[in-house]
Amino acid sequence: MEVINRYVAIKAPIDGVPKESDFELMNQKFSLSIKRGSKEIIIKNLYVSIDPYHVNQMKTTGALGRTIVPGEVINSYGVGKVIASGNPRFAKGDYVVGNISWGEYSISKGFFLRKLDPMGLPLSYHIGVLGLSGLTAYAGFFDICKPKRGETVFVSAASGSVGNLVGQYAKQLGCYVVGCAGSPKKVKLLKEKLGFDEAFNYKEDTDLNSALQRYFPNGIDIYFDNVGAQMLEAAISNMNLYGRVAVCGAISEYTDSEKHAKLDMLSIIYKRIIIQGFITHDYMNLFPEFVSKTVDYILVGKIHVLEDVLIGIESVPSAFVGVFHGNNVGKRIVKIADD
Amino acid sequence: MEVINRYVAIKAPIDGVPKESDFELMNQKFSLSIKRGSKEIIIKNLYVSIDPYHVNQMKTTGALGRTIVPGEVINSYGVGKVIASGNPRFAKGDYVVGNISWGEYSISKGFFLRKLDPMGLPLSYHIGVLGLSGLTAYAGFFDICKPKRGETVFVSAASGSVGNLVGQYAKQLGCYVVGCAGSPKKVKLLKEKLGFDEAFNYKEDTDLNSALQRYFPNGIDIYFDNVGAQMLEAAISNMNLYGRVAVCGAISEYTDSEKHAKLDMLSIIYKRIIIQGFITHDYMNLFPEFVSKTVDYILVGKIHVLEDVLIGIESVPSAFVGVFHGNNVGKRIVKIADD
Repeated sequence: MEVINRYVAIKAPIDGVPKESDFELMNQKFSLSIKRGSKEIIIKNLYVSIDPYHVNQMKTTGALGRTIVPGEVINSYGVGKVIASGNPRFAKGDYVVGNISWGEYSISKGFFLRKLDPMGLPLSYHIGVLGLSGLTAYAGFFDICKPKRGETVFVSAASGSVGNLVGQYAKQLGCYVVGCAGSPKKVKLLKEKLGFDEAFNYKEDTDLNSALQRYFPNGIDIYFDNVGAQMLEAAISNMNLYGRVAVCGAISEYTDSEKHAKLDMLSIIYKRIIIQGFITHDYMNLFPEFVSKTVDYILVGKIHVLEDVLIGIESVPSAFVGVFHGNNVGKRIVKIADD
Repeated sequence: MEVINRYVAIKAPIDGVPKESDFELMNQKFSLSIKRGSKEIIIKNLYVSIDPYHVNQMKTTGALGRTIVPGEVINSYGVGKVIASGNPRFAKGDYVVGNISWGEYSISKGFFLRKLDPMGLPLSYHIGVLGLSGLTAYAGFFDICKPKRGETVFVSAASGSVGNLVGQYAKQLGCYVVGCAGSPKKVKLLKEKLGFDEAFNYKEDTDLNSALQRYFPNGIDIYFDNVGAQMLEAAISNMNLYGRVAVCGAISEYTDSEKHAKLDMLSIIYKRIIIQGFITHDYMNLFPEFVSKTVDYILVGKIHVLEDVLIGIESVPSAFVGVFHGNNVGKRIVKIADD
């Protein structure tokens, strides 16, 4: 059986802030059956993840050379349902999570894809809080930052998909946690719903150094960086001896290749600071431990799940573009189809 | 018995590049005998260490608040001989190494001072190759950079007191080593005498990014940074996945508070780079292992000792100032007195 698969592609490389007009909805003939002898899997996409880092692969020169090609299907983390399978690891009707596409259907060789047991939780959770965003927060915070109870933790983009979970993990461990975000509504959410000790709006508190001095009178032990540039500079200025910086993202630099953090190396030396970049794919070994602990936290209400779900393949471009304007609160997801 | 102790002091805080006229030779009455009941040690200084990081404590606001006060004695690593001691750990006639002063005599409570067995080697070695410079190279390279045989290593200020040893340790381990320095003479020395695979003059090869591309066609695994700023930027650009940067010094930033490395955080994330500042005092636990291995290397000629010795307390200011103009080759030391 053949259908029309609608998928979202870029029209041309994007080197600045992405706009909706940079994208187009493509149509392709798509077979829902497997060729004899093929090990491929045909997936009906249900939920796809919207992540800012994708923009780095949309540039003329993609990050680490991994480039998204104009007109072609864009890979994305997501949840789907198997329609047909030539692969013994997957059967028709299975839920799957992993590498699918910004489209209505995906074809996969099973690479970076696994069978999903929803464990009675909403399917969308397995993209965000129990997906790569969650693992990023978990691995980055626990493995890179090596936090101890009572330490002080600063999180930028704290209402984002990763930041909100870093703050919640840190609170569970007994840290003092301050987040920054870009609107009064987000700040309120961080303090009142997610249990952050303090939060501030970086668009109002524009003297970041003073803001951090105020919120961290005893200095910052850990900075979980999602934004880069001036926020990183201010965090380094306010860091304690043996401070740790997990560099998870640098959204302020993604769309402006001239924007960089100017690092005060003397502080880095004298305060023995470690700055470490990381990519979640290196931490898949932590996945079982991460899921087990996080499900427990969710079930007893110790982690609050923040989702921001848009509907329909045609809303992928606006969902993605909006992330660069701070439109999302929590994990941004596009629901492609009903189960 | 009382003598006149001549010592070097700063006239006022120094916030830019130090000049000889920023210093003065002071005279103080100095007792060579110990007060009854005192645990102090009186030391005749023999050799004192000249290190660029001292300038950070000469500023109006010293690094981490440790400020050198105008007119007062300046502490420095060095070797001396005990003239009188009320401290049971030290006896008259002992050689000592550790915290003494930029002067002819020192008085010590024994803090950061130990009895020295010269092991048949020149006393000056115990300030440089077997002193803090050596430990800085050893701890920074082995503990922070975690090198493996066959990895590629870049060292800046490679003919300096620390850099030359990092390169030599790296060669012993079987790494590919490239150093940069500031004169043709130094470059020649690195390649012909110290066994660096390659070396270049950053004052001639001013396009640092191209220079590093040329010398590291397969990228840099380890960068041992003594200079900061543009050299660090170029090293990050040429770094491999899982690259490590040991931030030992940032001499180009010490005397220019506006000069900073603009770090490309995207590279740091995608290449999973670790940047770590360190202070040698944290690694005193490695001292016995470091000395034992390094003495062996020296005795069999596998480590070449590079010293740059000036004579007399009055030459301390010019010795120190010269370091900021690249005048030294290897460990800069001032010999204060004959044994």
